[in-house]
Amino acid sequence: MNVTVRGRTRHYRTVTFDARLNQVRLIEQRRLPHEFKIVATRDYRDTALAIRDMVVRGAGAIGATAAYGLAQGAQAFRGGNLEIFSRHLQTVYATLQAARPTAVDPVNAMNAVRRAMAPGESVAEQQVLALAAAEEFADEDVRHCEAIGRHGAKLLRSGMRVLTHCNAGWLAFVDIGSATAPMYSAQAAGKKFHVFCDETRPRSQGATLTAWELAQQGISHEIIADNAAGHLMQRGEIDLVIVGSDRTLGRTGEVANKIGTYTKAVLAQRHGLPFYVAIPLSTIDWRLKRGFDIPIEERDEQEVLGAWGVTAPERRRRSRMRTYVRVANPTSGARNPGFDVTPAELVTGIITPLGIFKPNEIWGRRRQLGFGR
Amino acid sequence: MNVTVRGRTRHYRTVTFDARLNQVRLIEQRRLPHEFKIVATRDYRDTALAIRDMVVRGAGAIGATAAYGLAQGAQAFRGGNLEIFSRHLQTVYATLQAARPTAVDPVNAMNAVRRAMAPGESVAEQQVLALAAAEEFADEDVRHCEAIGRHGAKLLRSGMRVLTHCNAGWLAFVDIGSATAPMYSAQAAGKKFHVFCDETRPRSQGATLTAWELAQQGISHEIIADNAAGHLMQRGEIDLVIVGSDRTLGRTGEVANKIGTYTKAVLAQRHGLPFYVAIPLSTIDWRLKRGFDIPIEERDEQEVLGAWGVTAPERRRRSRMRTYVRVANPTSGARNPGFDVTPAELVTGIITPLGIFKPNEIWGRRRQLGFGR
Repeated sequence: MNVTVRGRTRHYRTVTFDARLNQVRLIEQRRLPHEFKIVATRDYRDTALAIRDMVVRGAGAIGATAAYGLAQGAQAFRGGNLEIFSRHLQTVYATLQAARPTAVDPVNAMNAVRRAMAPGESVAEQQVLALAAAEEFADEDVRHCEAIGRHGAKLLRSGMRVLTHCNAGWLAFVDIGSATAPMYSAQAAGKKFHVFCDETRPRSQGATLTAWELAQQGISHEIIADNAAGHLMQRGEIDLVIVGSDRTLGRTGEVANKIGTYTKAVLAQRHGLPFYVAIPLSTIDWRLKRGFDIPIEERDEQEVLGAWGVTAPERRRRSRMRTYVRVANPTSGARNPGFDVTPAELVTGIITPLGIFKPNEIWGRRRQLGFGR
Repeated sequence: MNVTVRGRTRHYRTVTFDARLNQVRLIEQRRLPHEFKIVATRDYRDTALAIRDMVVRGAGAIGATAAYGLAQGAQAFRGGNLEIFSRHLQTVYATLQAARPTAVDPVNAMNAVRRAMAPGESVAEQQVLALAAAEEFADEDVRHCEAIGRHGAKLLRSGMRVLTHCNAGWLAFVDIGSATAPMYSAQAAGKKFHVFCDETRPRSQGATLTAWELAQQGISHEIIADNAAGHLMQRGEIDLVIVGSDRTLGRTGEVANKIGTYTKAVLAQRHGLPFYVAIPLSTIDWRLKRGFDIPIEERDEQEVLGAWGVTAPERRRRSRMRTYVRVANPTSGARNPGFDVTPAELVTGIITPLGIFKPNEIWGRRRQLGFGR
């Protein structure tokens, strides 16, 4: 999407590849929203570190980064021996996979690149195929998000007030995003609407990343505390909820997403408001039989006990370093579940690149939606 | 309640009066939870500033502070002319009222002191009556909280996991608190239970004040992000919710309390969990006919856009200064409603000093509960 830096507006993807320099170029997301900066990784180990250290985050974005990282590792290989090349690639693959061991997207992305390379009869040929496959993976991510936007934009009418939670925006993908895609598409169609961004404690991705995205695109928005959505719904100030998903169960339509999503779904149901989940097909889990079995990561309690931000002296110095402040009582601990699971009965519809479906329609359309691929 | 400072445990009230020095003594709540400090105000103007600047906050606590402040102002008067004394008192009253103009407790408290003074036939006699009335106001606040604790403790069994929101603890009253009173009473009866404290963004009173209180009293507890309660309820990890209230409508049983309370009530209903509201009688509004008419304060957006806490270098220096960090995107704004209204149908019971009642029983018992007093 577009980013304006010192008055100049340019289009950026979250992840791109510079084939000439054999570098993966990433928006440094840890600096956002206080500074916009592009970093380049010089080899696949750097790329793995960027994934591990959250320079890049979000399902689609880390998938594409891993795909490019594998191509980058392949590209760097010197020599013509296919067997040594293959062992080298295994190391590259394992290094990139270990960077975010629980994530499924880097694995799927790298498997796609590996499949595409297989027909290559020489190292050079395989190198070319790897790069083409990584580019195709990234482009497909963009096309899927565009399609989500096309389908989802129909839900948005001018004058609507939309609630979103966390960041399922273009920063979480190669471009456009999932939950934000209908907003960008509706904006392009000339519709005027307002977005409430849940702050999304404890990591505040709504207040930082989603708000930054919407500001860059010039979409009217306000940040609210996670506590405020219920009150706004009660007063009739929200018309529609759109969120993303980390994992959607193909068999049940249950949706795992950032902690707090379930609460918003319960509130939406109480107020008779439509609650939509926008997903790329890669996040559908066709295997698990019930949402209760989705492992819920218990994250570091420091996230709940404090906050990251920029202090006033730092703002004056135009420094963009973020400082952690301990907010909570120093002798208290915290629980910090990272995700929750929203049952299908609370989900009005699932916006996919192939159309909007009711949660219980997903399994019936499994062939069309990529089951077994 | 008890506070342990450098290994020594002592009992403190949130607000006390030193008659010898004519000083109101307050726990400096802006320093909590990072530092425990008592401040003394030398005259009623100081006391008004302490109310205005949130050294002391919470309905019962600012009520008692205003009552003491009026007595302090009366005490400081030199001379025997009742008419001049009366004009002086009007200035004191107006100064203390203006410190928190929307709050009803300081007004009620000062009116009680004025009524008690009226029979005094000399300045000296009225001064004595004022001080006695202020002490009685504070003592009654404590007795009411004790009674809330006695009734509410029956709801708590050993092994239970209790959720509370914001701070309706002893820091918000003269002692003991409302939502916390059942916990302290159950603890005194030897019951062992666990409390989840909602962080309570944007001002984080749960993570700071309630967690500090529970830690001082040695009650097992953990802080959670406001987003996490729904997930914990879904997984069967919460048995009971107890919150306080800023204003409860006597006619309808609707409950106005810190933003986010309504959301917890909706979640509790969905999971079939009891949702109790603990209130002193002074917070019952007998006049308003519907909760929708309760004015909802829209607070400064800076609260949502950042957080107050202690930085690591400050922690190392054992400094307790709190620093504000801007968390959110610098070019985004926020909505910040301070309160929400929970309808009676979501409230299992209201814990009052006179017993636990269903919300729709309050109006029928209005004489007993102080209507028209």
